[in-house]
Amino acid sequence: MKLATFLNADGQQRIGSVNVEDQTILDLQSAHEQENGQSASPWLNSMLALIDGGVAALALARKIDKECSDPGPHRFPLASVKLLAPVPRPRQIRDFNNAEDHWRGAFGGITILAARMAGKVPPLRSELKVDIPEVNYTQPIFYISNRFNVVGMDAEVSWPRYCEWFDFEAEYGIFISKTGKDIPEEDAHSYIFGYTVFNDFSARDKQMREMQGHMGPTKGKSFDTGNTMGPWIVTADEIPDPRKLAVEIRVNGEVWNRTSTASMVHSFEKMLAYVSESETLHAGEFFGSGTMAGGCCLELDRWIKDGDVVEIEFEKIGVLRNRVVRGN
Amino acid sequence: MKLATFLNADGQQRIGSVNVEDQTILDLQSAHEQENGQSASPWLNSMLALIDGGVAALALARKIDKECSDPGPHRFPLASVKLLAPVPRPRQIRDFNNAEDHWRGAFGGITILAARMAGKVPPLRSELKVDIPEVNYTQPIFYISNRFNVVGMDAEVSWPRYCEWFDFEAEYGIFISKTGKDIPEEDAHSYIFGYTVFNDFSARDKQMREMQGHMGPTKGKSFDTGNTMGPWIVTADEIPDPRKLAVEIRVNGEVWNRTSTASMVHSFEKMLAYVSESETLHAGEFFGSGTMAGGCCLELDRWIKDGDVVEIEFEKIGVLRNRVVRGN
Repeated sequence: MKLATFLNADGQQRIGSVNVEDQTILDLQSAHEQENGQSASPWLNSMLALIDGGVAALALARKIDKECSDPGPHRFPLASVKLLAPVPRPRQIRDFNNAEDHWRGAFGGITILAARMAGKVPPLRSELKVDIPEVNYTQPIFYISNRFNVVGMDAEVSWPRYCEWFDFEAEYGIFISKTGKDIPEEDAHSYIFGYTVFNDFSARDKQMREMQGHMGPTKGKSFDTGNTMGPWIVTADEIPDPRKLAVEIRVNGEVWNRTSTASMVHSFEKMLAYVSESETLHAGEFFGSGTMAGGCCLELDRWIKDGDVVEIEFEKIGVLRNRVVRGN
Repeated sequence: MKLATFLNADGQQRIGSVNVEDQTILDLQSAHEQENGQSASPWLNSMLALIDGGVAALALARKIDKECSDPGPHRFPLASVKLLAPVPRPRQIRDFNNAEDHWRGAFGGITILAARMAGKVPPLRSELKVDIPEVNYTQPIFYISNRFNVVGMDAEVSWPRYCEWFDFEAEYGIFISKTGKDIPEEDAHSYIFGYTVFNDFSARDKQMREMQGHMGPTKGKSFDTGNTMGPWIVTADEIPDPRKLAVEIRVNGEVWNRTSTASMVHSFEKMLAYVSESETLHAGEFFGSGTMAGGCCLELDRWIKDGDVVEIEFEKIGVLRNRVVRGN
C-alpha cells in the first residue's frame, strides 16, 4: 500500500492510499466514515496516528483501501490534491552516511570544491587520493537533522541565503513502526513501517566550513524546506529487497545519473540495531539511507542553479520532485 | 520566577513555581482554579503550554505565584514532590561546543584517553600541542541531540552498555520562548524564556570512535537518560548577565572543579541569530551552552564510576544532581 498525506479540496489535511496505476488517492477517513457508516477512527487522523495504531490500524487502512478500490466519492485524481510530506513533522530524523562510492566521490568532491572556491584549478578526480575512515565500514555513521525542515512533493525548496554551492542528495528512508530498544538485527525488519524518497538538500560551502569544528554538519543540512520527503510511504511488504532498487536523478528532466540502493554498506536493519543500543527508538522517527553512490552534485561536479527542478526516482517507491528557489 | 515540572502526590504531572528560600513549590493550575475560582487554564497544563502561551501566560503564572506566596493548600514542600525535567520532552535539542579552555582541555584529553585506552603511558598535558579549529572562534559550532533522552533532577542515569569511559558535561541552556527566523542578534534576548542546568552525559570511547566518521557525536551523546536537565527553569529576567555565573562540579559531595560561564566564546544571543539564519526556530526548543571550561572528566583526567552522584551547580539557577548506574 502507498500511503500519502494530502490537503483535500477544502484545505484539510488527510491521509490517503494511492493507486499509482489510475493515479488516484482514496481519503481513508472519509471512506471509513461514510462507506462503512462508522464514526471517525482516531487511527486515520494523521500518518503518525496510523503508525501509532500499529498492526491493527494498518489492517484497517488495508481493508478500506481494498473495499474502495473502484471509483467513488472518496477517491480523487492525484492531480487534484496537494501532497504533503508523508509525515509532515517526523518525531526525529537521523540521516546516515552509508555508500562506499559516495564516500569516495564526496570526500574527493570536497577537495575539488575547495579548489574552486579558492579560485584555483581543481585537481582531476583520477589524481585524488581519498582516505575512507575505517569506522565507516564497521558501524553506521550518522547525524541528527532538524525535524522541522520537512516538506513534501512539489514543495519549493528555499536556497539558504548563506550558501553559494547548493546541492541535492538522493536518498530514501524508513519510518519506524513501533517503539523499541536494544533491537536485535534479526528482529529489526518488523520495525520498518515503510519507505519514502528523501532529498537531503545541502549547503556545501557552509557544511565544509562548519565540519572543521568536528561536530558534524548542521547549518549545511538544516534550513527551512531543506529536507524533502515523498511522494508517499510504500509499506514494507511491497519492497521485499530494499537494497536492489534502481535510482534515477533528473534535473529539469535531464538524467544526471543512474545509481541503485545496492551501494548501501549497512542495511536499515543494521542501523536500527546499532542506534537502539541502550537507546529507545520511537514510532514515527525517520532514518535516511544516506546518499546513494553518485547521488549529489559534489560527486558529479555539476551544480544546480536557481529555478532548477530536481527529481529523485526510486524504483517501487516513486518520484520526489522539488524546485529550488533563491531569494525566498 | 523558578518554574518546575513535577509529579504531585497523586502521580499527576503539574507545573509549579518554586520558592527556594522556604523550599516549597506552588501548583500553579490548582492555585489558579481553586483560589481564583476559575476554570483550568490551558496555559498551565504543561511547561510547553506555558511557553507557547507567551507573555500573557507568563504574566498569569507570575500573578498566581505572587498571590499565593504564603503557605496554602497548593504549596508543597519541595521534598514531597518528584521533580521531572522542566520540559520533559523538548521540541528539539541543539548542543554547542563553546568554551575555549574546554576545547583545549577536551582535545588534549582525547589524546590522553586514547593512550590510556591503548594501554600506553599518556603524555603530560604540558607536552601536548592542541590545535583549535579557527572556525570555532568565528561561528557557533553545535550538533543536534536526541530530544527523547531527557530526564530531570535526581533521575538515575543509565551508563550505556557499549561504554567504558563515561563522562559528565557541566552545561546550562535556554528554552526558546517564541518562534522566529532570521533573528537579529540585538533582538535575540527576547527569545530566551529562561535558563536551566544541563548535564550532557557522554560515552567518550564511543564518541572518539564515531567522530572519525566526520558526522559528529551521536551514540557518544545519545542514549536513554543521557541528557539531564533541571532542577527548574529560571526565567530570563532573573539572570541579567548569564555570562557571569559561578559553576561548581561535585562528585559524591567532593568538589571536582569550580569554573564559570565566562568561559563561553559565543553568547546565547549570537547562537540564536546564527542558527536562525534561513531556518525557523520554534518555541520550546533547547540550546545547550556547551561544556564549561574544566567541566568534564576528559578535561580533569579523573573519571566517574558506577554509583557516583554528580552535582552541577550554577549560581542563580540551582543544583542538578544525578546518580550514574551501570547494568540498567
